[in-house]
Amino acid sequence: MSRVGVIGIGHGRFGRRSDATVQELAFEAFREAMTDAGIERGDLDASVVAAVPEYHKQRSVAGVVQEYLNLNPLPTWLTEVACASGSAAIRTAWMAIQSGLHDVVAVIGCQKMTELETADILALMGRVGEVQWESVFGTTFPGYYALFATRHMHDYGTTRDNLLQVAIKNHYYGARNPNALFRKEITMEKALASDPVASPFCVYDCCANADGAACLILAKEDKAKAMAGDQVVWLDGVGCATASMSVLRRPNLTGLPSASEAASQAYAQAGVTAGDIKVAEVHDCFTIAELMAYEDLGFCEKGQGGPYIEEKRPYVDGGGVAVNVDGGLKAKGHPIGATGVSMAYEICRQLRGECGERQVPDADVGLTHNVGGIGQYCFVHVFKNS
Amino acid sequence: MSRVGVIGIGHGRFGRRSDATVQELAFEAFREAMTDAGIERGDLDASVVAAVPEYHKQRSVAGVVQEYLNLNPLPTWLTEVACASGSAAIRTAWMAIQSGLHDVVAVIGCQKMTELETADILALMGRVGEVQWESVFGTTFPGYYALFATRHMHDYGTTRDNLLQVAIKNHYYGARNPNALFRKEITMEKALASDPVASPFCVYDCCANADGAACLILAKEDKAKAMAGDQVVWLDGVGCATASMSVLRRPNLTGLPSASEAASQAYAQAGVTAGDIKVAEVHDCFTIAELMAYEDLGFCEKGQGGPYIEEKRPYVDGGGVAVNVDGGLKAKGHPIGATGVSMAYEICRQLRGECGERQVPDADVGLTHNVGGIGQYCFVHVFKNS
Repeated sequence: MSRVGVIGIGHGRFGRRSDATVQELAFEAFREAMTDAGIERGDLDASVVAAVPEYHKQRSVAGVVQEYLNLNPLPTWLTEVACASGSAAIRTAWMAIQSGLHDVVAVIGCQKMTELETADILALMGRVGEVQWESVFGTTFPGYYALFATRHMHDYGTTRDNLLQVAIKNHYYGARNPNALFRKEITMEKALASDPVASPFCVYDCCANADGAACLILAKEDKAKAMAGDQVVWLDGVGCATASMSVLRRPNLTGLPSASEAASQAYAQAGVTAGDIKVAEVHDCFTIAELMAYEDLGFCEKGQGGPYIEEKRPYVDGGGVAVNVDGGLKAKGHPIGATGVSMAYEICRQLRGECGERQVPDADVGLTHNVGGIGQYCFVHVFKNS
Repeated sequence: MSRVGVIGIGHGRFGRRSDATVQELAFEAFREAMTDAGIERGDLDASVVAAVPEYHKQRSVAGVVQEYLNLNPLPTWLTEVACASGSAAIRTAWMAIQSGLHDVVAVIGCQKMTELETADILALMGRVGEVQWESVFGTTFPGYYALFATRHMHDYGTTRDNLLQVAIKNHYYGARNPNALFRKEITMEKALASDPVASPFCVYDCCANADGAACLILAKEDKAKAMAGDQVVWLDGVGCATASMSVLRRPNLTGLPSASEAASQAYAQAGVTAGDIKVAEVHDCFTIAELMAYEDLGFCEKGQGGPYIEEKRPYVDGGGVAVNVDGGLKAKGHPIGATGVSMAYEICRQLRGECGERQVPDADVGLTHNVGGIGQYCFVHVFKNS
C-alpha cells in the first residue's frame, strides 16, 4: 500500500484569542502550513475541518473556514468526536488520500472556547457524558476523571504527588513552547496549594480551555516525496476505537479500553511496538489521564504509571518515551477541535528534529493519543520520519 | 478500482418523535438496515454517524449511538456539514472502504430537531449563514432562499405557481410514503392561502423540521457481492464541492455553484451523464431549491426549471427525471443529520424496484443531491443497480 505523508505543518498561539474569529485562527495555522510545505492553493484537492461546533457563535464552521481560506470550490467536511475531533479529521484525510479520491488534503483543527460564558461551557461539557443515565445526576469531566484517579490510587498505590508530577513536567516544557497558553514552571508546593476541583484534583490537575488552531498538509506518497523530499513525516498507523460512554458499563475505571485497542491497531498497521516509540503526545486533559495513557499505550506495565513519572522516565532525557514535551493539554491549553492536530504538529517537529532544547534525541517514531470525551473515543496515530 | 456497494438500508418514521431519544431513533433505522443486509454486528468494521450536534441535549452523538447500538469497540466518527451531514458521512464511509481500512461500514444519519424551543432553533439556524457579514443583519434560511427565488423569477420568468407546483408534487408522493411527516396531498388554492414566510414564500414553500433517522450498510465489492448478491446497489460517484457562505460573493443567485460542480465530479466518476439519471432525490428545503437543482444537475437547461415542473416532467411518469417521489424534504420532513442518508435509502429502494405505486420504471441509475446550509456545501452521489 502507498503511504500518506505530512508535507507541511502550522500552529497558532493557544490562549484567550479575543483578537481573532475562528476562521482567522484557522488561517494563521493554514498559512504557516502552506508556507512550510512550499505549495500553493492550486496544489490542494480538499480540506477537512475539525471543531466542536456548539462552542461557536458561527456554526457551519467548515463552510466559513473554507471561504476565509479562499478554498472554494474544493470539497470540505467537518469531523466531530468531542476532544478527539482533530485526530478524526486526520484519519478521514488519510482515508481520502488512500481511497484515491484526493491527493493533497489540508487538515485544519480550530476552536474558539472563550466566546461562551463559563456556566454555558460547563453545561455543554456535562452533556458530553451520557445524559440519560449519568450526567443527569451531575457527573462532570473533572468528576469522571477524579473517579479514575481515585480508583487508580486505590488499586495500584498511585500517589497524590504522582498526579501532580505530570503537571510539573508539562508546565516545565510548556514554559519552553512559544505557542503554549501557560509558559511558566510550577512547583509541587504551588500545585498542592491550588484550589480543589474534584477530589483528588486541584486546579493544577486540570487542563484549561483555550482558543487556537493547528494545520497539517497530507499528501499521497509520490506527491509527498516530490513536494517535500526529506522533510516528509509518514503517517503509517491510524487506530481508532470506542468504549461505552456510560462508565458504569466499563470493565474497570483505571484505564481506557478504547486507548489500548486503538494503540494495538496503530502499532500493527505501522509495524511497530510500544518499544519503538521515542516521543508521544498524549491526552492529558487531567493528570490521571496521562498516567493511564502510559499504561494503555504500553510504555509501562499496568499500574506502573505512578513510578514511571516518579522516575521522570517521560522527560526528554528520562530513558522512557518522552511524553508531552511541548507542554501537553495541561500547559498548551485545550482548544478541543485543534488539540489532535496540535499533537500531530508537535510529533512532526520532533521527527524533523526541530525542537531545540525540547528535542528528543534520535526521534524516529512518534505517536499521538487523542481521547474524546471520557474515553468513548480514542485515536492513536503512529508517525515515522523515514 | 473496486466498487462500494450498499448492502442494507433502513429508515424510521420522520416526525415529532417525542417517543424516542436520538440513539433510539438511530437504532430503529440500524436494526432495519442490518436485517435487510442479513448480517450481524460481528460483520461490521466501523460506523459513521451524521448529525448536527447542537440541536440535541445529548452531545457526543456518535459516542452515545455507538454504545446504544452495542458497537463498541468498533471505530466511529461524526460528520457535520449542516443539512448535508448525511451525505458527508456516506462519502467518508466510501473513503474508509476504498482506502482498505474497513470493509463493511454502517452509516447512521440521526437527528432530534424538536427538543429545543422554536426560537432557539431559529437562532441556531441563523448562525449557519455567515455571521460576521450577513446573518448579523438578520438573514435567515427562508430569507436567503427567497432572494434566490425572487432573482430566478426576475431573470427567467419563473412563476409563483411554478414554486408551489414543486410542493404539490412532493406532497402527492409524500401521501404515499409511510415514513413521511406529512401524508396528505395539497392543492394550489390551499398552498397559496397559507401564511406568508418570506416573500415570495408561504408556509407550503418551506420544509419542516422533524426528528428521524436512516441507515445504510456499505461494503467493498467482493464482500457486497458475497453478502447481498443481486440486491447490491453500487455507489459509483461521490461528488462534493463548496461555495462561499457569503452569498454576496457568489457569481449569481439563481443556482448553487457547489451543486453544478459536485454533479460534474459525480457524473465523471460514475461514467454517466445527466441524461442517464432516471430518479433523483434533491434538496428541496424550499421550493426554489428543487427548481434550481433541476438546472444545476443538468436535468433541464439553465432557467428552464419553471417549465420543467409546469409540464410535470419530474413526476414518475413525466418523461423527465423523477424527482423526490418519496415526498422530498417538503413532505417527509427534514431531520438535518438524517436527510442525506434518507435520500440514499430512497434511491436504493427505487433501484431495487421496491417502491410500488411510486416506482420509477426501469430505474437503473439514480442520484442524490444534498445541500448544506445555503449551498456552501453540496454533495452529489450517483448510484447504479448493476
